[in-house]
Amino acid sequence: MMNDEATASVVEAIDEGRLWQRHMDLARIGATEKGGVNRQALTADDARARAALLGWAEARGFRSSVDKIGNLFIRRDGADRHADPVMTGSHLDTQPTGGRFDGVYGVLAGFEVMEAMSDVGWATRRPIDTVVWMNEEGSRFQPTTMGSAVFAGALSLERALAMTDAEGVTVSEALARTLLSAAPADMRPFAFPASAYVEAHIEQGPVLEAAGRTIGVVTGIQGLRWFGVEVVGQSGHAGTTPRTGRRDALSAAVAMVAALERLMDDRADTVRFTVGRFEIAPNSPNTIPNRVYFTIDLRHPDASTLGHLGDQVEAICRGNAKGCDVNVTQTLRSEPTDFAPAILAVIEDAASRLQLPSMRMASGATHDAKFMAGLYSTGMIFVPCRKGLSHVEDEYASPEHLAAGVRVLAGTLAKLAS
Amino acid sequence: MMNDEATASVVEAIDEGRLWQRHMDLARIGATEKGGVNRQALTADDARARAALLGWAEARGFRSSVDKIGNLFIRRDGADRHADPVMTGSHLDTQPTGGRFDGVYGVLAGFEVMEAMSDVGWATRRPIDTVVWMNEEGSRFQPTTMGSAVFAGALSLERALAMTDAEGVTVSEALARTLLSAAPADMRPFAFPASAYVEAHIEQGPVLEAAGRTIGVVTGIQGLRWFGVEVVGQSGHAGTTPRTGRRDALSAAVAMVAALERLMDDRADTVRFTVGRFEIAPNSPNTIPNRVYFTIDLRHPDASTLGHLGDQVEAICRGNAKGCDVNVTQTLRSEPTDFAPAILAVIEDAASRLQLPSMRMASGATHDAKFMAGLYSTGMIFVPCRKGLSHVEDEYASPEHLAAGVRVLAGTLAKLAS
Repeated sequence: MMNDEATASVVEAIDEGRLWQRHMDLARIGATEKGGVNRQALTADDARARAALLGWAEARGFRSSVDKIGNLFIRRDGADRHADPVMTGSHLDTQPTGGRFDGVYGVLAGFEVMEAMSDVGWATRRPIDTVVWMNEEGSRFQPTTMGSAVFAGALSLERALAMTDAEGVTVSEALARTLLSAAPADMRPFAFPASAYVEAHIEQGPVLEAAGRTIGVVTGIQGLRWFGVEVVGQSGHAGTTPRTGRRDALSAAVAMVAALERLMDDRADTVRFTVGRFEIAPNSPNTIPNRVYFTIDLRHPDASTLGHLGDQVEAICRGNAKGCDVNVTQTLRSEPTDFAPAILAVIEDAASRLQLPSMRMASGATHDAKFMAGLYSTGMIFVPCRKGLSHVEDEYASPEHLAAGVRVLAGTLAKLAS
Repeated sequence: MMNDEATASVVEAIDEGRLWQRHMDLARIGATEKGGVNRQALTADDARARAALLGWAEARGFRSSVDKIGNLFIRRDGADRHADPVMTGSHLDTQPTGGRFDGVYGVLAGFEVMEAMSDVGWATRRPIDTVVWMNEEGSRFQPTTMGSAVFAGALSLERALAMTDAEGVTVSEALARTLLSAAPADMRPFAFPASAYVEAHIEQGPVLEAAGRTIGVVTGIQGLRWFGVEVVGQSGHAGTTPRTGRRDALSAAVAMVAALERLMDDRADTVRFTVGRFEIAPNSPNTIPNRVYFTIDLRHPDASTLGHLGDQVEAICRGNAKGCDVNVTQTLRSEPTDFAPAILAVIEDAASRLQLPSMRMASGATHDAKFMAGLYSTGMIFVPCRKGLSHVEDEYASPEHLAAGVRVLAGTLAKLAS
């Protein structure tokens, strides 16, 4: 077969029903009562989802391997065994009250393309690796995108393995348990050579739906800075301690968040500022709080604005401390990333051949593709999700949109692997 | 012996070392690493503390009894078996990070007086009951002063028994377990007749220390209103959701607390306003919070001011809802209480005879004595605590001050029981 002909037959073989069924199968693992998924990294449910995927891969004759941080690779061999692979994939872990599509879609999209290629009996020149990045969400173990960061050398393996969850369990311990029940045979090195990386994902924002487009050709990822703010005051009896004698950690933290919101309030509504975790102690109605810990998630597509805003966080917190001690730590910093123009062109062309309406757009969320962009020619494909809602239990993407994205991925991978 | 002579001998028999040792013995039950106590109501440690007291009572030949909400009574009989008792006491439960004296002192003070009376072999006319009120702190089960409220008929037994802790355990279940391991023989009715109630307590505020007085003659208790505020918004991805499309429950709650602080900011610093509990969900750094629950503890000695301020809470929360749903519930309301002038005079006279410097003062904290004031002639005796700190692990009152307060209580009870 000629390449174009083969590509057309692979795209034709993409099975919307099979793709949807696989999503529903994985959504049962860690399902929540409200229809979402709680399958945090390296839990028993995460291991079950990995084992399910390994089972499907084995049935297809795809080889599996793993690296030392637990990233999982499913390979479909190419005709040229010495050629560097084309990589695709995403993650299987979710938020504590997450949905059925965030991450899972990118893994199942890559797997569906490999299955369709096998269905039509086409051998691409390059191998294709569908990767499952370990702990993209960062909700059980921080930081986020842990597996891809270690793979790319942006985070040391030792430091990642030593991170603990709220119960004090280390990544190292949890990973060992996960690999006991879902163990690929081969070990892969970090940052092995590959010719390209393309990740499919639901948009997790409202842009495609509002614009009536099916395919987002992602130009890059906005920058991100995370901070942890610890406020330490003095406990005391709520009924007897005069306001002027208080060092109330909650009152100080509230003043800090309010002041930070004023700083971040841009007219264009481009700044993304979120206080997502907020914990107080001793958390008793009639005791003045002596400790608050809260997190800041700050994002912007422009590197200098991100730098300027983030650099003011500590001073604003200190300026609203109300006599408390303040400890501000930057826990993550990631500059804006641009994807490879050549990959964007291939994705755009694939969408165009399928007559699917597409648009270029930046990604509001961070993805594992961010770290791949430092290693390989990288791009991403977005499909719409309902109301732009993600990281919620009623996150939804339609079977038609999911399949359309996989067809574009199939066209893209076929081109890149030929 | 004549009454004055007997009283003097009882006061003489108050044993500062024994009193201190009992405090240290009970402080070991639920001791925290930082030298405080975590002995919340109806926990295994609370049962152990009750059992220790029952053991001491049995060794002295004092009778013990309990009522249906778990208030515990230790009786020293009087010469007139038909006379109504004089009551004293306080509570043995603590805050999650509480101290060694709040509550415990009032129980051990009453017990020390009864022991001293036995040591000198004096039979008062009236019996004396030292009571341990169940769940004064309200930190595991709300509301605060649960046992005395039920005893006085201000809270129904059924409603109290059905309250649950954070794990869903009911008061009824926890009480049954407590009584299995610390079970008095006799059952007492609620609100039984008594001639007076006097409670000793550490001040939990800075007034006595600042004034250099040893004894506070407590004129009454300031009024209290508790509210629970639930804010429900919409979760979403922190990186992709524009600010204008958010319904961020944390952002709304912060605006509410900041606005309430402006309302409560009086020049005289008489208003006591505390947000002591603050919980958010899903509590993940990169997810917009969809729910916040926080509590308000508002106190003021003037009934009309308390009413006026509390009545604005709901409107202020609604005015800062930022598109979220708001549910404000008043969980407790307690008007300011005045104690009986006749009791205050007896306490003042007892302090004066001992040449202890005393002063009249209102209580900033709520106490079980509040509900007793509706049933009996009631008063309270305060002793200083270091820096006015209470509900903290380094809460401290000196052995000398504790003993001085017990001597005043001895003189007071001797007078009231004669």
